[in-house]
Amino acid sequence: MHYLDDVWYCAALATEVAAKPLARTICERPVVLFRTASGRVAALEDRCSHRQAPLSRGRVIGEEIQCVYHGFVFDCAGNCTHVPRQESVPAAARIAHYPAVERWGYVWLWMGPPEAADPDALPDLDWNANPKLRPVFFHWNVKANFQLMADNLLDVSHTDFLHGDSIGSRIAAKGGAGEPKVELECRIEGERVHFMRRVHETLLGPVATKWAGSDKPVDRTNYLMWEAPNTIHSVLEFKNAETHHTIHLDHIMTPETPATMHYFMNWTRDFGIDNAGYPTDDDVWREQNTVIGGDDIPMVEAQQANLARFGAVKDVPALQDRFVVAVHRTLARLYRDAGKPVPREIER
Amino acid sequence: MHYLDDVWYCAALATEVAAKPLARTICERPVVLFRTASGRVAALEDRCSHRQAPLSRGRVIGEEIQCVYHGFVFDCAGNCTHVPRQESVPAAARIAHYPAVERWGYVWLWMGPPEAADPDALPDLDWNANPKLRPVFFHWNVKANFQLMADNLLDVSHTDFLHGDSIGSRIAAKGGAGEPKVELECRIEGERVHFMRRVHETLLGPVATKWAGSDKPVDRTNYLMWEAPNTIHSVLEFKNAETHHTIHLDHIMTPETPATMHYFMNWTRDFGIDNAGYPTDDDVWREQNTVIGGDDIPMVEAQQANLARFGAVKDVPALQDRFVVAVHRTLARLYRDAGKPVPREIER
Amino acid sequence: MHYLDDVWYCAALATEVAAKPLARTICERPVVLFRTASGRVAALEDRCSHRQAPLSRGRVIGEEIQCVYHGFVFDCAGNCTHVPRQESVPAAARIAHYPAVERWGYVWLWMGPPEAADPDALPDLDWNANPKLRPVFFHWNVKANFQLMADNLLDVSHTDFLHGDSIGSRIAAKGGAGEPKVELECRIEGERVHFMRRVHETLLGPVATKWAGSDKPVDRTNYLMWEAPNTIHSVLEFKNAETHHTIHLDHIMTPETPATMHYFMNWTRDFGIDNAGYPTDDDVWREQNTVIGGDDIPMVEAQQANLARFGAVKDVPALQDRFVVAVHRTLARLYRDAGKPVPREIER
Repeated sequence: MHYLDDVWYCAALATEVAAKPLARTICERPVVLFRTASGRVAALEDRCSHRQAPLSRGRVIGEEIQCVYHGFVFDCAGNCTHVPRQESVPAAARIAHYPAVERWGYVWLWMGPPEAADPDALPDLDWNANPKLRPVFFHWNVKANFQLMADNLLDVSHTDFLHGDSIGSRIAAKGGAGEPKVELECRIEGERVHFMRRVHETLLGPVATKWAGSDKPVDRTNYLMWEAPNTIHSVLEFKNAETHHTIHLDHIMTPETPATMHYFMNWTRDFGIDNAGYPTDDDVWREQNTVIGGDDIPMVEAQQANLARFGAVKDVPALQDRFVVAVHRTLARLYRDAGKPVPREIER
Repeated sequence: MHYLDDVWYCAALATEVAAKPLARTICERPVVLFRTASGRVAALEDRCSHRQAPLSRGRVIGEEIQCVYHGFVFDCAGNCTHVPRQESVPAAARIAHYPAVERWGYVWLWMGPPEAADPDALPDLDWNANPKLRPVFFHWNVKANFQLMADNLLDVSHTDFLHGDSIGSRIAAKGGAGEPKVELECRIEGERVHFMRRVHETLLGPVATKWAGSDKPVDRTNYLMWEAPNTIHSVLEFKNAETHHTIHLDHIMTPETPATMHYFMNWTRDFGIDNAGYPTDDDVWREQNTVIGGDDIPMVEAQQANLARFGAVKDVPALQDRFVVAVHRTLARLYRDAGKPVPREIER
Repeated sequence: MHYLDDVWYCAALATEVAAKPLARTICERPVVLFRTASGRVAALEDRCSHRQAPLSRGRVIGEEIQCVYHGFVFDCAGNCTHVPRQESVPAAARIAHYPAVERWGYVWLWMGPPEAADPDALPDLDWNANPKLRPVFFHWNVKANFQLMADNLLDVSHTDFLHGDSIGSRIAAKGGAGEPKVELECRIEGERVHFMRRVHETLLGPVATKWAGSDKPVDRTNYLMWEAPNTIHSVLEFKNAETHHTIHLDHIMTPETPATMHYFMNWTRDFGIDNAGYPTDDDVWREQNTVIGGDDIPMVEAQQANLARFGAVKDVPALQDRFVVAVHRTLARLYRDAGKPVPREIER
């Protein structure tokens, strides 16, 4: 596999995995996800070894899954346990399984050798279990390499341009109003990269104004922590004399194919958590689908298409890209350490 | 051509070929089919030799077809007989023709050298001409290699799983009710393979119950005979003390491209042939479109997609596959005898 | 570039280029076209050098365009003039620009070295500026190589077949009514090819009858002049004792990709120019979309698809193809003179 294989990949929201099998491609591998009668989440390669029919068209029976074509049955470890109307089962009928863990509202798969799966290596998203916070979960399928979406999030400055009319700060246009002071900090710590960006006393776009709970200038701070393969933990803080709101976000980017990805996200607030006034879960859902679905996803998809059209062009980095650069370097080192080729997307 | 060329390929239902030309791809070759003023069916390669416009956009004039772009005219043997506003016709303007025969409700093409075309080699579907039987004809375009659809039909055991709720027998689920006795027979006879599968005293799915004309347990017998390239003649018999109904089916699989096919079928009954009560032709049409269109075609298309996704995986045969195996061996021998490469679909 | 590069390519109707940037592919190059605050038309390669986002998603600010992703700004010569929140701009941030001229109702781009751009080499369409004539402009995107559309226009004889029921003459069908006299003249003059086709005393299809303004037999004459890369200037004249109407047409074919093209056209009449009776601009618009959109474009797209399906087949020319042949020879010579490979479409 061309991907890092000693990490967990998020494959689904926990709510997406039920008794009805779910077909999904993770790191270019077709996988069937399902929930057994006992509630356990399992993941197998999505093919019956008999005639290569997708198991995702089959049915869960107890703790097993049955192919709907000719009735072969497999357990959660990929062993074939039954072939209709014959007594023995050929050993070659075994298929691959992927260790699966359900945690923090997501289902995580280990795509490397199963025996190396290490639950301690799961990312920590414990604010999703904090009763003082309220998460809303998202899943988008994006037609772009997973690094392009990660880079979008790693360069917070895009918010002021791409989302200038909704969630950005009012500091963008060339020749626009006075530019507020901006602080940046970036720090590599082993296999993690930390980043802070604070815009002092800025006015906000209308949606961000509602989040802040204040229409006066605020200090707007993004704290971000990145970890491999491409999970970004973020705290967004709005603060002035009359308000102090924080939003915890986890952005989790999973490769589907080289040119497509799964984007998982939780938007976890410390205000309006009784879901009775603004923001309700529905408000959050609509806002994020407008901003991410309407601005970010079309942009990274257009970028992916442009990279295909223009071929081997080189990026020209800006000073604000230091977090992107630090992450790319860290990732490149991890690929080299694992003896894998460094993807073009982080070599640029 | 990578296909067997000393056989007839079904290219259309007889009712599909009319004065308005019909474009169809048979064995990867673009063909135009049309019916002349005298009622004769003809097939030419689907290009005008002048500028490569498709003749299927043209018009039939008498016993000929005229290209609609600049007016070249061709006869049924592919000879160019007229170029507008010039007296002579260049010999190079000739295009290929395919010998065409209309028989048993279908139009058959000979894709090998025309001089070798042998009407005696046409498959025998004479029950379509039997006044005591009543056929209904079908044509589906399927996004899968033609062998996958053939294999579907050759392994009758799939009926009890994929169609368990409609036309199957109630013998499928692991841990289900008692399993009735099943007899299998398989016999290779030259270039034909014969197969029999009888399920004794079985309950049937609701649609099969209506066909049988009895809701008591029946002996359900499938007699199948396969012949090259991929025609399956089948008799399905339901029998107990109060009923004896038979259905004659011909399933004819024609390659369109390596990953797509034409599937022709007739469902020919010996009951309800006055078309006044159940089953009417409309009932037959609806049932088959539900079962084949809703179950089989999506399954073989998913299988085709999975083979593309998984690449070189090997099937793990079951004991019930003996008819499939016998047919694959016979086909492989025919390809080798013809000095052609054995397709991957029957080497697996 | 595999295309001639010492010629102007039409990239848009003048009315298509406004402040909102327009993405278009010309000669396989992604281009962004826009109109600045001062009304100037500009064309840049459609990528921001920072992260390869399409500039066509950006905004025009004064005489410049700003990328909407992270705010880089470019002038009309492709120089990067501003990177947000940093003082200097890296020289490597420069992108390509294409000299652009707005003339005769079209926007023309020079795709070769910018310093060689020569406004005197622009085609002359001055009848679009003649107050005694009234043009209507068209743009179609066609899924065929640009030469196939040119060849369609160069062989006027297709009109009588493909458009026999609308704008053709009644001289087409084999075995039809008496064939009127047809004169052809063809003359190569340096890099231009001239052609004349006159059909004497012919009846016309119903649409052409309305253009002619007479339902009696007319002399119908097409005068055509072709120039590189693929612009065809045409005068269509209808004349008898009671009428003399002329229509000036320019057909401009621009490559988009090897298998797709832009087709620009003006249909410029010397009758009904007060737009009060037949033909109004709307009549012209409807008729051309019916004839070109309904007959010609489907035909050349079918031809393109057929060339892909049949591979290396050779055309069999007719006597009426002399204008096509003369143009192909002239084009082939221009490609060879420019040291470029002769495209397959004119070698056939």
